[in-house]
Amino acid sequence: MLTNGKIKKINSLKSKKTRQISQLFTIEGIKSVKEIALGGQISLREVFATEEFFPMARAVCPCPVECVTQAQIGRISAQSTPEGVLAVCEIPQWGEPDFSPGRVVLALDGVRDPGNLGTIVRTADWFGVRDVVCSPDTVDLYNPKTVQATMGSIARVRVHYRDLPALLGDCPLPVYGTFLEGDDVFRAGCAAEGVIVIGNEANGISAAVARVVGRRLTIPRFAGAQGPESLNAAIAAAIVTAQLCAGGRGGKNPGK
Amino acid sequence: MLTNGKIKKINSLKSKKTRQISQLFTIEGIKSVKEIALGGQISLREVFATEEFFPMARAVCPCPVECVTQAQIGRISAQSTPEGVLAVCEIPQWGEPDFSPGRVVLALDGVRDPGNLGTIVRTADWFGVRDVVCSPDTVDLYNPKTVQATMGSIARVRVHYRDLPALLGDCPLPVYGTFLEGDDVFRAGCAAEGVIVIGNEANGISAAVARVVGRRLTIPRFAGAQGPESLNAAIAAAIVTAQLCAGGRGGKNPGK
Repeated sequence: MLTNGKIKKINSLKSKKTRQISQLFTIEGIKSVKEIALGGQISLREVFATEEFFPMARAVCPCPVECVTQAQIGRISAQSTPEGVLAVCEIPQWGEPDFSPGRVVLALDGVRDPGNLGTIVRTADWFGVRDVVCSPDTVDLYNPKTVQATMGSIARVRVHYRDLPALLGDCPLPVYGTFLEGDDVFRAGCAAEGVIVIGNEANGISAAVARVVGRRLTIPRFAGAQGPESLNAAIAAAIVTAQLCAGGRGGKNPGK
Repeated sequence: MLTNGKIKKINSLKSKKTRQISQLFTIEGIKSVKEIALGGQISLREVFATEEFFPMARAVCPCPVECVTQAQIGRISAQSTPEGVLAVCEIPQWGEPDFSPGRVVLALDGVRDPGNLGTIVRTADWFGVRDVVCSPDTVDLYNPKTVQATMGSIARVRVHYRDLPALLGDCPLPVYGTFLEGDDVFRAGCAAEGVIVIGNEANGISAAVARVVGRRLTIPRFAGAQGPESLNAAIAAAIVTAQLCAGGRGGKNPGK
């Protein structure tokens, strides 16, 4: 039953510290909860659904599902317009990222905006990228805003937090970094494999990570000097990932 | 002076209706205000700056600049963490979009998220796209969240609101639409000119606009059936724009 004690416990998962101690997070919306249930890689602890979604939630979720009112969902939701389904899930342990030949991996060095991280995970999923490795100062994936922005891709993409210089210094794949200056990504002729490093929204890639980048890539600025200073981090990640995955075809197809 | 009456008036610009009647909007942050001032295409009415930013604001802004306290900025700001500079600007009248040969133009059919619209304008600016045409049901550009997400590109990119079927039905440039099915954008061999239509976040391109699309393009889903249902609208816009602008080089360079 959704007691006051349980409401308090679920709301406490909005804090990163509580999520880290309990190793739990919440996800909302029937579509996302369904993807978690069908993906089978993230364990569902319990699900709360309004009458409208209760039958569908109970049909797919291998865990207790409780029927609650819209007002009750409102008391545990992190959204301004709650969607009627909220699940408490276990934070998965993904093991090591896969750097085998033909893989494309994203590495995020200090991405701070929850929406950017969520969108990057969703884009990675679209292009068949299975691993996203984040520096410890990248925003927390299990933040409700980030979870929401993944649009269900959190069920499939393995997001890791690691020390990037150590991990990438040893990496068998080519390591590409996106900078404001470097080789034109559309003409660089990269094969469809490698690690793509994306930097912080304001400061780009840190000096320590830049040292393990093997090749600097840039997205040409067609606007010339009049244009904006930079692209949004999620946009830059998407353009470079698309270019590597699609432009590099003829070579290997990533995610296979 | 920042009287209570003026504070009320500035805050009323958070509403679309008031912006439409007064033809005014607000923009925050010294960087954005500077780009508006230097761009010279949007008229500044008045600027409020804290002591820190007052000298810089006064140096660049061709309008009255008032020195105010951080607390006063807080009372007129739309941001949770106000940046110390707020300008009241006139909504520009851009005339007609430029469909001459070699141009790339973006058309947004019902994009609803303010962050998506702002990010699309910023990306357009990067790639030298000068005109973005929005359907009347696209979110308002002068919404403070959208203005913020453009990161100053609002000073350069001409955003129009028009009836898309009428405008594009007559367009001399090729009209491309992004759909979940169509020609692979990475292999379509499009020249660096044309209108790129981006649809609504949930429902894609409307039937009326789809009828004036000359060629359907798609971003291939490398993940296969397991991937997400769609890409974020700003991400899709960026990938297709990048591909047209960069992939189509050899032909003409847009924005020139």
